Amino acid sequence: MKILFIGDIFGSPGRDMVKQYLPKLKTKYNPHFIIINGENAAHGKGITQKIYNEFINFGANVITMGNHTWGNREIFEFIDGADKLIRPANFPEDNPGKGIIYSKVNGKEIAVINLQGRAFLPPSDCPFKKAEELIKQAEKRGAIIFVDFHAEATSEKQAMGWYLDGRAAAVVGTHTHIQTADNRILPNGTAYITDVGMTGPYDGVLGVDRDLILKRFLTGLPVKHDVAQGREQLSAVIIEIDDKTRLAKKIDRILINEDHHFFE
Amino acid sequence: MKILFIGDIFGSPGRDMVKQYLPKLKTKYNPHFIIINGENAAHGKGITQKIYNEFINFGANVITMGNHTWGNREIFEFIDGADKLIRPANFPEDNPGKGIIYSKVNGKEIAVINLQGRAFLPPSDCPFKKAEELIKQAEKRGAIIFVDFHAEATSEKQAMGWYLDGRAAAVVGTHTHIQTADNRILPNGTAYITDVGMTGPYDGVLGVDRDLILKRFLTGLPVKHDVAQGREQLSAVIIEIDDKTRLAKKIDRILINEDHHFFE
Amino acid sequence: MKILFIGDIFGSPGRDMVKQYLPKLKTKYNPHFIIINGENAAHGKGITQKIYNEFINFGANVITMGNHTWGNREIFEFIDGADKLIRPANFPEDNPGKGIIYSKVNGKEIAVINLQGRAFLPPSDCPFKKAEELIKQAEKRGAIIFVDFHAEATSEKQAMGWYLDGRAAAVVGTHTHIQTADNRILPNGTAYITDVGMTGPYDGVLGVDRDLILKRFLTGLPVKHDVAQGREQLSAVIIEIDDKTRLAKKIDRILINEDHHFFE
Amino acid sequence: MKILFIGDIFGSPGRDMVKQYLPKLKTKYNPHFIIINGENAAHGKGITQKIYNEFINFGANVITMGNHTWGNREIFEFIDGADKLIRPANFPEDNPGKGIIYSKVNGKEIAVINLQGRAFLPPSDCPFKKAEELIKQAEKRGAIIFVDFHAEATSEKQAMGWYLDGRAAAVVGTHTHIQTADNRILPNGTAYITDVGMTGPYDGVLGVDRDLILKRFLTGLPVKHDVAQGREQLSAVIIEIDDKTRLAKKIDRILINEDHHFFE
Ligand SMILES: [Fe+2]
Ligand SMILES: [Fe+2]
Ligand SMILES: [Fe+2]
Ligand SMILES: [Fe+2]
Ligand SMILES: [Fe+2]
Ligand SMILES: [Fe+2]
Ligand SMILES: [Fe+2]
Ligand SMILES: [Fe+2]
Repeated sequence: MKILFIGDIFGSPGRDMVKQYLPKLKTKYNPHFIIINGENAAHGKGITQKIYNEFINFGANVITMGNHTWGNREIFEFIDGADKLIRPANFPEDNPGKGIIYSKVNGKEIAVINLQGRAFLPPSDCPFKKAEELIKQAEKRGAIIFVDFHAEATSEKQAMGWYLDGRAAAVVGTHTHIQTADNRILPNGTAYITDVGMTGPYDGVLGVDRDLILKRFLTGLPVKHDVAQGREQLSAVIIEIDDKTRLAKKIDRILINEDHHFFE
Repeated sequence: MKILFIGDIFGSPGRDMVKQYLPKLKTKYNPHFIIINGENAAHGKGITQKIYNEFINFGANVITMGNHTWGNREIFEFIDGADKLIRPANFPEDNPGKGIIYSKVNGKEIAVINLQGRAFLPPSDCPFKKAEELIKQAEKRGAIIFVDFHAEATSEKQAMGWYLDGRAAAVVGTHTHIQTADNRILPNGTAYITDVGMTGPYDGVLGVDRDLILKRFLTGLPVKHDVAQGREQLSAVIIEIDDKTRLAKKIDRILINEDHHFFE
Repeated sequence: MKILFIGDIFGSPGRDMVKQYLPKLKTKYNPHFIIINGENAAHGKGITQKIYNEFINFGANVITMGNHTWGNREIFEFIDGADKLIRPANFPEDNPGKGIIYSKVNGKEIAVINLQGRAFLPPSDCPFKKAEELIKQAEKRGAIIFVDFHAEATSEKQAMGWYLDGRAAAVVGTHTHIQTADNRILPNGTAYITDVGMTGPYDGVLGVDRDLILKRFLTGLPVKHDVAQGREQLSAVIIEIDDKTRLAKKIDRILINEDHHFFE
Repeated sequence: MKILFIGDIFGSPGRDMVKQYLPKLKTKYNPHFIIINGENAAHGKGITQKIYNEFINFGANVITMGNHTWGNREIFEFIDGADKLIRPANFPEDNPGKGIIYSKVNGKEIAVINLQGRAFLPPSDCPFKKAEELIKQAEKRGAIIFVDFHAEATSEKQAMGWYLDGRAAAVVGTHTHIQTADNRILPNGTAYITDVGMTGPYDGVLGVDRDLILKRFLTGLPVKHDVAQGREQLSAVIIEIDDKTRLAKKIDRILINEDHHFFE
């Protein structure tokens, strides 16, 4: 089975790239399952019902989130009915939404889990303990396990990869918005990458207009973040999983921008 | 002119990789100038005189550092005489050592600058203001400018790339120990990568034994960091600079490990 | 000479307390000089021209600020003409406004300096180096030196007190919004208190409605901060300075609320 | 019932003050129960068996800890047998030790709970949720509830006070090492103070030699922390509880140093 995971969609430039390239990626890679991180989809912060529906219509099977889950207040109105959307499972238990989804594909069950790191991020429950708890549950069901670990520190992300090596089919990092070059199959069969990277503006700072960010770094004065305009990029990974062992055989990076053209 | 930059050397595994592969990298790429980040060279923290000498003997022209500059107390004894070693230039002015070096290569002058970020790192002077000050100085001398920006946050690193685009030949990031896949030539001619990655253990967490790090994440109990054993990796970039424009033409990533074999 | 310093005025409850008690405090203590920290005066964040004028009309000689200096955008319109307002002196040099004011009182000159800490706060220039620079300047003029050190960490505040002991007449802390009980004259004559405390709501969390803050701590969900209603408090210190030595003789805490009644 | 709580004992100066003044405090206040925060008792970091025994022999009923719980490795050897020592209850569940103690005094049961904040401190489980869980348990037993909330941010501490108002007899803060002046009985009967303050050196920075700390703030260079010498202080609170309502009637601050002499 092949799973396509597209990294943090940032504002309309990111949504444009999904619209434009997802059909081509489907044709090229034939993924059986598509996961999109949508925490920045609505003007850089959060997601709306319309965008969520759009992603599902494009063919996404699951939408994951992160520290910007609540960034657009519309989410409180539709999250209860959004059965394909997950937010970090280690948020407080009484938070709206859920952190794990089970889906059937080709007669196999996939468990997608969203977790958030604690280094340099707001407090949350222990992502390692929560991973343990949810994975035990998923293992009992014999599901293929896919983890989007939304975290800042490379140490915490690598640690999670090792922690779940041999149990999850894949542990992919999101949040730093820069694709890392360390995609690999860990010794016990888990596909790992520290960060899938961001899908959106190619010439901003993590998606935001670079002049605003530079103004903030240089002066400390408040700036209103705005989505960068101009050239765009798409960041993703395609992971091949052995349906029998429920572990990974291959993880390849996908990066589409003016310096890395897409070949059909 | 070609510059080879090797990312954070971590402990003896990292030094072994330099010893083993630097001759081969020289043969393959013919770099005119070699820069090594040595902040983790001595058992993961700091550098010693012996290691510094070793790197120079291997052919390094400049050694850069970072937040672990003072991690091994031996540095206070030899830094004044280590004319090829720089530490972040935006450390307080009365700190030992210096943050910029001018070197002659093939009749051209190269200025190598080391800076440290402030997001998620201890306080220091503004790296953007310090960059501006040092680069003005280097521009007057007509030097080719190379910047090692040692920082945690991807936003601060991308911002520095844009800030120096068209003025520095290269802005390469260090510190997160994970190579990023975003190496590119920015529109005005600066070679940029968010992080070159670490040279050392391949199966640890940023170089440290993974069981220790996992114990810390899971229990919060204190652990003594120890260098991971086993397989090793080398992370580097090779940058081609136009001696006339003093800007970059090309930046390629180099990653050597069991999943990415070196081809001579 | 006696200086009255009133801690962080928080929203309209804080402004009410100043209006109500400043006349009584003047009658009781006969201060020669009045300083008010106004960083939270406008609905908890920043200050407006109208509020600034009001404070001056109430008799304030200097208004100090802090990390919320730019919290209300109106400040950018009037700060250039607000000659009695200072913001942290260790903000970047090209920021609007200034960080030191010289005033004449009874034939003596007073230098009031505003500085901001770096522990747990956004990056800024070194407050210790900036203090050194400004105090050297003020010493040359023979001025009495008063420092409002706006900082979070008790260690950084105590360190500043010791650093300036014998040079500043007073180093008073602001920002944590809780008055500390450690007011004292340091061995070389500087009046010191780690935090003067906040002037505003008595039953909120640092001035904010407590239900909102509790919701945030319990759920991590976003909440809009709102000024707490109900009972109010005033936090201040009165400092007596020897005009000849330009050092302090006495520092007394003032706390007015329903548990600490004001006696005229 | 009266409870005496003595704030963070720092090194031998702190232990000396306990030895010297605890007998006098007993004579003056006649406390029925004595709690000591011992997280800095062993040279500023952690506690040893000998010091623990000493505190018990001096008459302490319970020793609480904080972020320095594991600062001295000896604790791993004796914590299992130290039935009067508690560490933050919201540390990971498999950590050695416990976070709540029940004691009998005068036929009444007292539950002492130790919790740690998450703002500006290492990750831990939610202190509010853990408080809720433990207090429900203690309420069922009809115990008088005393909470030592070890935290940095004044907002988190005030929030905890309000959260437990009417359920705990007392919520006292520790960790910042500076006594606050906001001791009060909250509207529903809980005695509250943001920080009790530190017991140890009077002329250091939070207990540490001030020259070392200043060197670190000024240069960023590593310094070995050392306990400050010279004058000493003791910081405590005495709380009067109504045995029937199990709520507080009074909370008074105690501060003993050369500026605040002890009157028998
Ligand atoms: Fe994101
Ligand atoms: Fe994120
Ligand atoms: Fe490093
Ligand atoms: Fe580093
Ligand atoms: Fe404030
Ligand atoms: Fe503030
Ligand atoms: Fe402490
Ligand atoms: Fe502490």
